Amino acid sequence: MASISSSGVHGRYLRALHYLSAAQIYLQDNVLVREPLRPEHVKPRLLGHWGTCPGINLVQTALNQAISRDDLDALLITGPGHGAAAVLANLYLDGTLGRFDSAMSLGHAGLHRFIKAFCWPGGYPSHLFPGVPGTIHEGGELGYALATAFGAAFDEPGRVVACIVGDGEAETGPTAASWHSTKFLDPASDGAVLPILHLNGYKISNPTVFGTMDRDELTALFTGYGWEPHFATADPEAAEICQAVDDSLSKIRAIQAAARGGAAPGRPRWPMILLDTPKGWTGVEEVDGQPVEGSFRSHQVPVPNVRDDPDHLRKLEAWLRSYRPEELFDDDGRPAADLLSFVPVGDRRLGCNPATFGGHRRRPLDLPAIPDFAIDLTAAERGGPEESPLKRVARYLAGVIARNPHNFRMVCPDELESNKLGGVFEAPTHRHYQWPFAEDGRTEHLGRRGGRVLEVLSEHLCQGWLQGYLLTGRHGLFPCYEAFLPIVTSMMNQFAKFMKMSGEVPWRKPVPSLNYLETSTLWRQEHNGFSHQSPDFINSLLNKKGDIMRVYLPPDANCLLSTLDHCLAGVGHVNLIIANKNPGPCWLPMDEAIAHCRAGASIWKWASTDDGIDPDVVLVGIGDIVTVETLAAAQILRREVPELRVRVVNVTDLLILEKDTAHPHGLGSQLFDSLFTADRPVIVNFHGYPSAVRQLLGDRGGPRFTINGYREEGTTTTPFDMLARNGASRYHLVTQALKAAAAHNPAAAVRAAERVLHYEYVLRDHSRVIRETGEDPPEIREWKWEGGRR
Amino acid sequence: MASISSSGVHGRYLRALHYLSAAQIYLQDNVLVREPLRPEHVKPRLLGHWGTCPGINLVQTALNQAISRDDLDALLITGPGHGAAAVLANLYLDGTLGRFDSAMSLGHAGLHRFIKAFCWPGGYPSHLFPGVPGTIHEGGELGYALATAFGAAFDEPGRVVACIVGDGEAETGPTAASWHSTKFLDPASDGAVLPILHLNGYKISNPTVFGTMDRDELTALFTGYGWEPHFATADPEAAEICQAVDDSLSKIRAIQAAARGGAAPGRPRWPMILLDTPKGWTGVEEVDGQPVEGSFRSHQVPVPNVRDDPDHLRKLEAWLRSYRPEELFDDDGRPAADLLSFVPVGDRRLGCNPATFGGHRRRPLDLPAIPDFAIDLTAAERGGPEESPLKRVARYLAGVIARNPHNFRMVCPDELESNKLGGVFEAPTHRHYQWPFAEDGRTEHLGRRGGRVLEVLSEHLCQGWLQGYLLTGRHGLFPCYEAFLPIVTSMMNQFAKFMKMSGEVPWRKPVPSLNYLETSTLWRQEHNGFSHQSPDFINSLLNKKGDIMRVYLPPDANCLLSTLDHCLAGVGHVNLIIANKNPGPCWLPMDEAIAHCRAGASIWKWASTDDGIDPDVVLVGIGDIVTVETLAAAQILRREVPELRVRVVNVTDLLILEKDTAHPHGLGSQLFDSLFTADRPVIVNFHGYPSAVRQLLGDRGGPRFTINGYREEGTTTTPFDMLARNGASRYHLVTQALKAAAAHNPAAAVRAAERVLHYEYVLRDHSRVIRETGEDPPEIREWKWEGGRR
Repeated sequence: MASISSSGVHGRYLRALHYLSAAQIYLQDNVLVREPLRPEHVKPRLLGHWGTCPGINLVQTALNQAISRDDLDALLITGPGHGAAAVLANLYLDGTLGRFDSAMSLGHAGLHRFIKAFCWPGGYPSHLFPGVPGTIHEGGELGYALATAFGAAFDEPGRVVACIVGDGEAETGPTAASWHSTKFLDPASDGAVLPILHLNGYKISNPTVFGTMDRDELTALFTGYGWEPHFATADPEAAEICQAVDDSLSKIRAIQAAARGGAAPGRPRWPMILLDTPKGWTGVEEVDGQPVEGSFRSHQVPVPNVRDDPDHLRKLEAWLRSYRPEELFDDDGRPAADLLSFVPVGDRRLGCNPATFGGHRRRPLDLPAIPDFAIDLTAAERGGPEESPLKRVARYLAGVIARNPHNFRMVCPDELESNKLGGVFEAPTHRHYQWPFAEDGRTEHLGRRGGRVLEVLSEHLCQGWLQGYLLTGRHGLFPCYEAFLPIVTSMMNQFAKFMKMSGEVPWRKPVPSLNYLETSTLWRQEHNGFSHQSPDFINSLLNKKGDIMRVYLPPDANCLLSTLDHCLAGVGHVNLIIANKNPGPCWLPMDEAIAHCRAGASIWKWASTDDGIDPDVVLVGIGDIVTVETLAAAQILRREVPELRVRVVNVTDLLILEKDTAHPHGLGSQLFDSLFTADRPVIVNFHGYPSAVRQLLGDRGGPRFTINGYREEGTTTTPFDMLARNGASRYHLVTQALKAAAAHNPAAAVRAAERVLHYEYVLRDHSRVIRETGEDPPEIREWKWEGGRR
Repeated sequence: MASISSSGVHGRYLRALHYLSAAQIYLQDNVLVREPLRPEHVKPRLLGHWGTCPGINLVQTALNQAISRDDLDALLITGPGHGAAAVLANLYLDGTLGRFDSAMSLGHAGLHRFIKAFCWPGGYPSHLFPGVPGTIHEGGELGYALATAFGAAFDEPGRVVACIVGDGEAETGPTAASWHSTKFLDPASDGAVLPILHLNGYKISNPTVFGTMDRDELTALFTGYGWEPHFATADPEAAEICQAVDDSLSKIRAIQAAARGGAAPGRPRWPMILLDTPKGWTGVEEVDGQPVEGSFRSHQVPVPNVRDDPDHLRKLEAWLRSYRPEELFDDDGRPAADLLSFVPVGDRRLGCNPATFGGHRRRPLDLPAIPDFAIDLTAAERGGPEESPLKRVARYLAGVIARNPHNFRMVCPDELESNKLGGVFEAPTHRHYQWPFAEDGRTEHLGRRGGRVLEVLSEHLCQGWLQGYLLTGRHGLFPCYEAFLPIVTSMMNQFAKFMKMSGEVPWRKPVPSLNYLETSTLWRQEHNGFSHQSPDFINSLLNKKGDIMRVYLPPDANCLLSTLDHCLAGVGHVNLIIANKNPGPCWLPMDEAIAHCRAGASIWKWASTDDGIDPDVVLVGIGDIVTVETLAAAQILRREVPELRVRVVNVTDLLILEKDTAHPHGLGSQLFDSLFTADRPVIVNFHGYPSAVRQLLGDRGGPRFTINGYREEGTTTTPFDMLARNGASRYHLVTQALKAAAAHNPAAAVRAAERVLHYEYVLRDHSRVIRETGEDPPEIREWKWEGGRR
């Protein structure tokens, strides 16, 4: 192996990190190789990833010296989170692990326990995870480190977020987009991000794309993105990386000083570092005649058959001894006296920065009183004022922004205006953008200082930025076209996993909830068509842990206000709120809306004809537009079949459909039956795929439940045509109700059959009108709730 | 408005395209404004996107002239597919629409029908879709145009795929990654991709990031990516874009000639075009005092209130007349004689390139005989040979590659070797990579000419490339870690939508199926942990149309072979195949495996103790690893409770659980009951989230079904510990079976209670052993099927 001959303190610390990284992967005993290595000292299952560790160790060494020297408020986000052994090595040496778990103390017992715990059942997993102090990004699924780093830097002018981006991760789309993030970073009021692109050269079994680019290409690429590249290579004394970090910090200070001194904004060229090291540097040179160091073969466990192959065992032993651990740890197994001399202490340690304990840092939002924004409505006026619920909440959000100028952000993929949320700019804020833009009336609501809104056409960036912001204790909202949240399904999966594991770590507190506001929903896509109709983010969320995920479908503007208020005040959840942006009727006065949202579902007695008991059929609306159809159906039934006892139920919290044993919001069977009866036919009109309701109802959803929803039918067409194509229109509901009730009450069968036929004609007629006139029939466009109970 | 004074034929054609683009958005009558424009000439719902059309029109004009002149085999992929009006204008003028629909002929009647059809219910949607000839990419969800273009260019050395990338789309991660695709393109045996980055300046309501970058930044960025940028601007005669296209084509030919002449491979700098035009160029300059042309306000319908506001109506009329349609269309409404002089004819038209009719171009794969690759197994040897099913199919895939050297590709995010598919390199092939790489033993199976395997650490690129390849009639396979397919959930959504709509177009034939091979599954993640455990791609697929999606969970290597063979031969489906990569038992001799896969589910009589009738309990395995647990549970039950009549069922085709009315593979109730009985307890052990089975069973899944699966619990731990944490281990199944059977057969209740307690102890004991030794107890590691029916 490339013997490492460093003798300066940085080089010695680096050797200690390398040693501990390798030892964690292999050893369960004889952890300082103070005696000859024998097979039984080696773990039975060799897991982990060596290849990326040496580069991470260089960065940690350089950051430690800079933090100590400058008393820097710095975090490290490690894109290659599978290099956890390297991160853990540093956290062990600087005493962070011992702070959170006294068993991980410095000295023989702690060292033994620490080294054995890696990839051991019940110990540290192979990747970073919330149980590792200082971690706000696992780095399991690659692509999101850099965006997360920016999120952690926003609104913290004194902070430097260092971020290692692996050259494998750099091939991902989300990372490729993230390099543009400086265009959204305010050098005056935000902190800095210092990316370190680790040119490790190889992935699992291929060279990396960036590893095959030459220096001219790399320089051109990152210059084009707007960065100033600094290069460093593998250096046993870590001098090059220290120099690159120091130069970068100087440049960062210069940019910030200029902006904070009032210099005109321009195109700040922030520094970045390209760290070029052989993969698995300082590891074994070859195994079984094949090169390992500097090759993809270093990726995981470079010497594989240590317990069975004496040659492999000898190679491992020589490798471990090449770091000369006897010079680094004393007889008690404690780090040598000089080793920690330059390493930060207390909260300056990389694992102890208070920012990474977001739950502890959180200050609750100062939320405006929702009644101030409510639609004023009497019970007699139900359905009356047609207004965009999104426009209504935009005014409320302007209030949120005005009251919380430094710890609330909205991220959106260029859809804020399209989503009718432009009203947020009634607050003293704007979209933040740093690069020069036209100021001649061709842009609106753009600014260069401290804007609360970040708009970029990348859902990945929106999500990544917001994750970093939330995990450092701040709050946010992500409004998005419904169809395009699935772009970040896997990011949401990973975030929900992070939240789940965080909940199992005693020293973490829950961070502010991740709030999605899904709008421009499939039922009213107007300028767009079939590609913009995908409600399956709901289904993805339903597979997350019950104590984390929530799905809300407020039926009107007042319910939306109440729901948003609830979600913005919450912690530890992933909330999905779904609301149509087009004008729609308001059903509930504010006090009723609040009560309805608290209950999650209610019988709407004012729309029912069952006098609260013993209905012939139950109509259930879940979602705003489909609820209109439910009410329109109820109105038709009341007029056409007045003797039919119809109950109208609205569900605003989707999870009430689950059993109470499966989700905290789930209804016990008594409450469930009080809404849906024990045996009557139930016609559900659901906003999304019927599968979501089917899986939630499970064995409570017998054949008496008819579930309508989006059947994956659509194009650019009229609102009513969308409902009709998917069998979710008022006439479909009426027909289903009549058929179901006829089965229950044979006397109604003849009449039902006649009306069923009638409504089939109506549907055909409407379809003809739509094709002829290009719009919905007046009867649909002008439909109004007639009001009043019977 | 910026009056367009072009008089050359390119300029005149451009005016015609602009005119038709605008007219489609607005007019339902008076389509050539031969009389004064009145409100009733205007469509009641104004939908569509003007802003991007003028730039698309420049590109179409330039491509038309180059294609005609050079007799070029060229496609156009339009990233801004919402600029459909521009694409349709060109397809109308060059006669393509009339070829597929005689009503869309040149002349008044056809012109009227064509213009009115846009965004009209039953007509053309606002976006490109499969009903538009020449379309292989809708461009609804942004980010995938460029990768799709590369897929269409692979293995077609004579083809040039032009691709417009909007500067909004360019902000997305997938596009940002796609620029690296030339590093995977072989100039000798692949075609060329000519990207045109349309610097339109604005998105829906923001400037674009690329629009704010200066020319130095843009040049540096794309040079760094490896391209040679050419610039063009808005030019009424289209001369600049024609020149840029011609220069680019010359450069393409030079690169290809060098490679095809045997020049040493290097870093070919392919040309690209940056087309800088004002958004909504030639549209209205201002409306209501606000700038529109050259601003985000041009994005959709630039003059909004035409039916109600006379000033808006006058503005629209003046705008339409500014193109002087009377000079472009004759009295019969036919294009003026010169207009089509340079436009290609026949199959050279952009909408008629045969490559875009992938279903017609498809040549079925020449597939090797699967018995040659089967595990040779007698009924007495069931469970015997432990072998990696993936290694087995790798040999089969090597056979596929050898027999199909030019129309089959594998794409993979750097996981081929990790997924144990390295055996494909037994075929005369390699991973294709173009940029220089080490050839000193530090890389393996890499080559620069015609390799069938493309590996890049971007699931988005893999999917995009493969989509382009399939839609032009070729075949492919996408092996991927299970946890990371959700990264492309939304791409799969969009592809499935494209397939669904294609099926409704009479002149399209189905293209080869999109085949995913999901492995490195959650139950055996070895080097990784919780972040690598996400089976929710299954759930996403289940929401697609039933005639498109298929989900297979073959229980052993022979079933996997049969399944893969079936999927590679298929068309028109999205197939998800899920198989573990680690060595596992083989259960079925090849003939049984084929029969089992054809049935989709079978009773495994050899593992059952019910003699084919009247079981006390049914154990169902769905997925390979969980099926092992099912069999282990059956074995325990046979030994411990020999009087219990246990039926073992295995499901390999997940969709058999659906009703036959909902999916073509769904089972009617008689067949369903013949497997699962009508009333006995059924214990399902499922590979993924129980929700998937729950939603498929729906109201057939009463409380007699117990569904086990992944409960979102995990870390880096042993295989058995994963099963135990999620309640899916053999002992959990035994316990559930005993409890269920005891309820059914009270005589067994006492014994059951005793055994239940026993297995709780066993579980606790195993957990202790795992934590102490770091591996599963020998009883688990060495478990074997005892074989033989009672």
